[in-house]
Amino acid sequence: MKNVCCAPCTLVHEKNQTQTDEFSTNKEHFKIASAQLKGNIWLDGLFGIEKENIRVDHEGLLSQKPHPEVFGNKLKHPYITTDFSESQIEMRTPPLPDIKKTVGFLETIHDIVSLELEDEYLWPQSIPPILPDDAKIPIAKYDDEGIEAQQYREFLAQKYGPKNQMLSGIHFNFSFSEKLLESLYSLSNSNISYKDFKDAAYLKVTRQMLRMRWMYVLLFGNSPVVDSTFELKCKHNPNRINKNVIGLSIRNSCYGYHNLGVIYPDYSSVQNFKLSVDKLIKDGVIKSSKELYTQVRPKFTHESNHISYVEFRFIDIDPLTKAGITENALYFLHSLALYGLLSEEPDSFDAKSQEIANNYLGYVALNGLQLNPFVDEKTGKVINVWQEMKNQLQAISDIFTLYSIENPEYLKALEDVKMLADHPDSRKVNGVLDGIVKRGYIPFHLDLAQKFLKESQEKNYHFIGLEDMELSTQLLLREAVKRGVSFEILDQKENFIRLNQNDNQQYVKQATKTSLDQYSSILTMENKLITKKILDETGIKTPKGLEYSNGETAKSDFHFFKNKAIVIKPNQTNFGIGITIIKNNSDLSVFERAIDIAFENDSTVLIEEFIEGKEFRFFVLNQEVVGILHRVPANVTGNGTSSIRELVDVKNQDPLRGKGYRTPLEKIQLGEAESIFLKAQQKDFDYIPKQDETVFLRENSNISTGGDSIDYTDDIPDSYKQIAIQAANALQVKITGLDMMIKDITAQPTPENYTIIELNFNPAIHIHCHPYKGKNRKIYEKLLTALGY
Amino acid sequence: MKNVCCAPCTLVHEKNQTQTDEFSTNKEHFKIASAQLKGNIWLDGLFGIEKENIRVDHEGLLSQKPHPEVFGNKLKHPYITTDFSESQIEMRTPPLPDIKKTVGFLETIHDIVSLELEDEYLWPQSIPPILPDDAKIPIAKYDDEGIEAQQYREFLAQKYGPKNQMLSGIHFNFSFSEKLLESLYSLSNSNISYKDFKDAAYLKVTRQMLRMRWMYVLLFGNSPVVDSTFELKCKHNPNRINKNVIGLSIRNSCYGYHNLGVIYPDYSSVQNFKLSVDKLIKDGVIKSSKELYTQVRPKFTHESNHISYVEFRFIDIDPLTKAGITENALYFLHSLALYGLLSEEPDSFDAKSQEIANNYLGYVALNGLQLNPFVDEKTGKVINVWQEMKNQLQAISDIFTLYSIENPEYLKALEDVKMLADHPDSRKVNGVLDGIVKRGYIPFHLDLAQKFLKESQEKNYHFIGLEDMELSTQLLLREAVKRGVSFEILDQKENFIRLNQNDNQQYVKQATKTSLDQYSSILTMENKLITKKILDETGIKTPKGLEYSNGETAKSDFHFFKNKAIVIKPNQTNFGIGITIIKNNSDLSVFERAIDIAFENDSTVLIEEFIEGKEFRFFVLNQEVVGILHRVPANVTGNGTSSIRELVDVKNQDPLRGKGYRTPLEKIQLGEAESIFLKAQQKDFDYIPKQDETVFLRENSNISTGGDSIDYTDDIPDSYKQIAIQAANALQVKITGLDMMIKDITAQPTPENYTIIELNFNPAIHIHCHPYKGKNRKIYEKLLTALGY
Repeated sequence: MKNVCCAPCTLVHEKNQTQTDEFSTNKEHFKIASAQLKGNIWLDGLFGIEKENIRVDHEGLLSQKPHPEVFGNKLKHPYITTDFSESQIEMRTPPLPDIKKTVGFLETIHDIVSLELEDEYLWPQSIPPILPDDAKIPIAKYDDEGIEAQQYREFLAQKYGPKNQMLSGIHFNFSFSEKLLESLYSLSNSNISYKDFKDAAYLKVTRQMLRMRWMYVLLFGNSPVVDSTFELKCKHNPNRINKNVIGLSIRNSCYGYHNLGVIYPDYSSVQNFKLSVDKLIKDGVIKSSKELYTQVRPKFTHESNHISYVEFRFIDIDPLTKAGITENALYFLHSLALYGLLSEEPDSFDAKSQEIANNYLGYVALNGLQLNPFVDEKTGKVINVWQEMKNQLQAISDIFTLYSIENPEYLKALEDVKMLADHPDSRKVNGVLDGIVKRGYIPFHLDLAQKFLKESQEKNYHFIGLEDMELSTQLLLREAVKRGVSFEILDQKENFIRLNQNDNQQYVKQATKTSLDQYSSILTMENKLITKKILDETGIKTPKGLEYSNGETAKSDFHFFKNKAIVIKPNQTNFGIGITIIKNNSDLSVFERAIDIAFENDSTVLIEEFIEGKEFRFFVLNQEVVGILHRVPANVTGNGTSSIRELVDVKNQDPLRGKGYRTPLEKIQLGEAESIFLKAQQKDFDYIPKQDETVFLRENSNISTGGDSIDYTDDIPDSYKQIAIQAANALQVKITGLDMMIKDITAQPTPENYTIIELNFNPAIHIHCHPYKGKNRKIYEKLLTALGY
Repeated sequence: MKNVCCAPCTLVHEKNQTQTDEFSTNKEHFKIASAQLKGNIWLDGLFGIEKENIRVDHEGLLSQKPHPEVFGNKLKHPYITTDFSESQIEMRTPPLPDIKKTVGFLETIHDIVSLELEDEYLWPQSIPPILPDDAKIPIAKYDDEGIEAQQYREFLAQKYGPKNQMLSGIHFNFSFSEKLLESLYSLSNSNISYKDFKDAAYLKVTRQMLRMRWMYVLLFGNSPVVDSTFELKCKHNPNRINKNVIGLSIRNSCYGYHNLGVIYPDYSSVQNFKLSVDKLIKDGVIKSSKELYTQVRPKFTHESNHISYVEFRFIDIDPLTKAGITENALYFLHSLALYGLLSEEPDSFDAKSQEIANNYLGYVALNGLQLNPFVDEKTGKVINVWQEMKNQLQAISDIFTLYSIENPEYLKALEDVKMLADHPDSRKVNGVLDGIVKRGYIPFHLDLAQKFLKESQEKNYHFIGLEDMELSTQLLLREAVKRGVSFEILDQKENFIRLNQNDNQQYVKQATKTSLDQYSSILTMENKLITKKILDETGIKTPKGLEYSNGETAKSDFHFFKNKAIVIKPNQTNFGIGITIIKNNSDLSVFERAIDIAFENDSTVLIEEFIEGKEFRFFVLNQEVVGILHRVPANVTGNGTSSIRELVDVKNQDPLRGKGYRTPLEKIQLGEAESIFLKAQQKDFDYIPKQDETVFLRENSNISTGGDSIDYTDDIPDSYKQIAIQAANALQVKITGLDMMIKDITAQPTPENYTIIELNFNPAIHIHCHPYKGKNRKIYEKLLTALGY
């Protein structure tokens, strides 16, 4: 396996120039500063990913269908758009302070896109699938507002050929944290401005990464062959067409996508860089700065002459990972960038140096599957990429030690790549080549695409990287991504987010605490006695009852409640604590004991009529009932041989059951409350229920304590829905989770047949979307619509 | 002193008729029920007062000024209107479940009215002040909507004479609680309907009170003489005019205000009552049922044939009490009504019985100042009202014992009236007569009116009877009363009220939690980090700082903060706990200790730049700064001899200082926080500050911890107010208490000169209305306007 398409390139650099960039004058300042800064602060930064995936049909042919309409305006969508081709979906994460979160976000976008495709897959490879003739490759279509974008794509198709544009990849956007840069700056006592100091740092990273990107490609390159419909042209020999190249990363090789002509910008200062790019434009080499396809690009804040981040463009899609990229690969890439900043760099990065770095990368990309050292024909030097790799990896480790960088994920990633360097054939590309050899290029990748789609379908409620947020919020964020509503996590612990689209900015906490409701409405819902009063005035049935602020008064009212079915409960109750239900009792002492128990839990106690019937949760949104759920208390059904403990264990294995509102259902607990409740039935956890015997473990039916959710939205007559809406209106609320007891859902809603127990101001949405039994009521969609998106 | 104007009336009843009312058929049911019910539930009820006071000028002349415009539409005002005359203000409380609250409410209306009068007083006597000629007595004026009300008054003036209409008094509206009546009904096993059962109870109370009202008048009657401008006509001898009557209660005597003609309705059943009233109308005796001036009136719910409460109309204004009525008098009146319900009644209450009861009352009203028994000329029986009174009071006590009624206020009131029965000359009327004799009728009452006005002016912030509510809420409720916005206390402990006027219903908690703000805005204010983020984005200056969730990371950032002025504080801080201020420190261990202290109080810690300057509280309401306050931490200023302890004691004696937000300022505490703060200054509570030395006892300046409030609303330049409004807009909030640090209020608001510390979503209003120094900014007025009133 040898891929030499052209004259050998210069691969070794000779020292011959003097460093002139502005950073050199600050080199000493920087050294002084960095020497003083220790710890994981060095890893602080923001990380964003852009990824392209081609849509293909079941045969592996480039899709001819338009971009899915559900994603809306592709020009404005912050997360999901198209790249060159209409069938080439581009996914973009926002910059996030954590690589794990960034990859999770990307995977979530990937999931969301996958679920919206009809009979299509996302092609999991940088090298395109089966392509039609040039003329049939659909260029991304835009409306009038996007006319420029469309014209630019047509220009590219003409200049570089449409097939070349179909090479897809991943861009990684990286910036150091302001805290890190400010620390360095303040420690440096530099006499340049902070912004200039930052520019110098980013330019150094740019130069260093252009020098060192070969290391990343050597380890993670993964575009080894092309389909026969693709035609490779080496940039050194563009007249010869090749279809049979086998390499490590064709996309990064001389066969990849490059600017036409010689492009060596001046990276010595921002000013020089801009001047050199302007010259390229003036000379007609490129049309504008965005056509500058260098693999490491300093990026400027809009209309500013200062760098805000650096973009790395040499990342191949990892065909074996659904998201197309692993956290490990990015931890390493980030480590490499940091190493670039902290290590000494050669004096110069002139055109010659750049040419050599490019050649070196090209060589590695094409020949990196081999393990042999070789001799540079021009200089006669022996070049051993693996030995060089090992030396550099050790240098990175040394830098980490020197700066007390101890983040375990990064250290683990570094160990992993050292292992790859020791065992190059354990690289993923080897597995991919194996698969291609056995199954064929198209079937191998199609299988992966199918497998990934299945994964996306299976866990279709999580927002990866944000799994510690409430599921209701995760569902809302997934819908935001789908609709192109950009969001920020303002306070992750608090599930507090900000949504934004077309100047409509919304603050949302815990999914249903929004701007739709007035503060006073929330307060009326929060106060159960006030809620009841308002409903009573409206003629809506609530449990009749009395309120007591001392036990003696309550006890002296026994005559009221004698022989009736009543509930004695603390005013502010949680999960049934302190509640006693008494039926047909004529014994004063029983009544008195129940009063005492309730007063142990609150200073206000209610005695209410006991309401017979089934409890239903109505989710009311903007005067519409968007979901109705019946919740069954935590329960197990016997098989005649397993104990309650064992049956709970089995039921809890359902992946839908988790802990702390992060899954659609909660695990059933075997705690004190369950134990007491079973005891009242003369049972314990070791009791073996008979075949088909259902044993309840709680009085209350909350999903949060292991209850089951059963969708009744289509089964409850409209007359009950109207009552729920009327109740919400009486309290002037837009979003509420209303609990109604109904004796017989087939009967009329007379005051004998229904009673409203309470209105909750922060109802969960996930229970209506992923019930134990029933349909997804997609409340997240209706909620975003209600918020004006 | 003997007042006999006419032929002696029949005062003693002969048994001669059979009871026919429907209650008799339920007598046994009622007996069975009441025998089973014990305790203070018997006192449960609703109590409302209507009171008339005539407006007079400084000479005691009836005012010729119109009803104060500030009270708005007199036809719709629920609390303040006019009675017959434009100068006769009528004050009405809503029905409240507690006599103390009802009297407090009345006194508050009285205060509010007094404060709005210009050079006028409220005449504190049922008998009118100096009256002009009939033609100059201004009849209440109404606009077109009130044309009927005006016509009715003109009819009355013609029929009864305008001066007679100027007799003013108090009406007490009373109902038993539904709980009490329902209890009785359910215990009675009666076969009539609940509503009929209630009617029967109220009709019994009506009859009994018509029989027994003389007792109340004998004890509390207080309209002993008239001014020479008033002309008395006895109903038995209407042609003779008298000006020199001296009696106990002229208003309740034959000289008082009565229907013309013989009026004896049938109280045996609701149906009979209505038939008998209809006959009076048909016969032209009265024009409509509202002209029926019987002294005890059953009142019907609008358009219903069932009684909802009973009105007692024989109460004279108490000239010695600002509110015109004492709680004690009403506790006794209520006890009397209850006694009436629970005691056996004579078999009949026909016209003859009514005549005798009326005569007896008239006799007592006129002759009640005497203490001698006398002989009824018609029957020859000896009548001793005081002995009869004592017998009845004992019977009331016995009933209380029998039914275990142990409310201490009621028992005390009963003891007090027993004392009056034993010492009739200690009745208030005797004091009033004394005063009239010494000072003259007009000057004596004018003095009282002046004294009451001064009292109203002195404590002009409380809502009497609701003093346990926050002062901000009390101020808002006073303003609601003034404007005629009716309100209900939904939850007193929670300061949760409902306002209502012209279909605008508003729920308000703690005065500033309202419908004006969206729930999400409250949540952003509540989260200090999010608040800062939003303000930063808007370009508004906030303290620069960093947030830490673990101590080690914070400590490792020492280089950031070395030698700077910083504040280290828990994220959620209260009253300065856990906060350390460090300036120019280069000692790591000092920094570390401060971090540890902060983390002892929260899991998130902020390190912020220390902001120099003075702190100001901006109250922003609907994009307007309505008050600015500078708060000074709790402090004392020395006199060279007193200790800090003594100086605090003196400062705390200011009546403006109280506890728990119920007064404009709070008492300074001598607690641990103050002790620690003094210790840091090498002082303790026994330290004696030098003359004019100001010693601070707290770091924080909250009013709640004894701080002083100084109004700066007019002293802060508009440019700072604009920033406050901009900040409120950025968070989309309508009501906020914004805390801003300003170095120099005369300088421009550059980021160097101001910093916003936080926005509070539930700012107190009272601190801006009753500051330690400065003007009342009347935020309660602006708030009600903002709420749409």
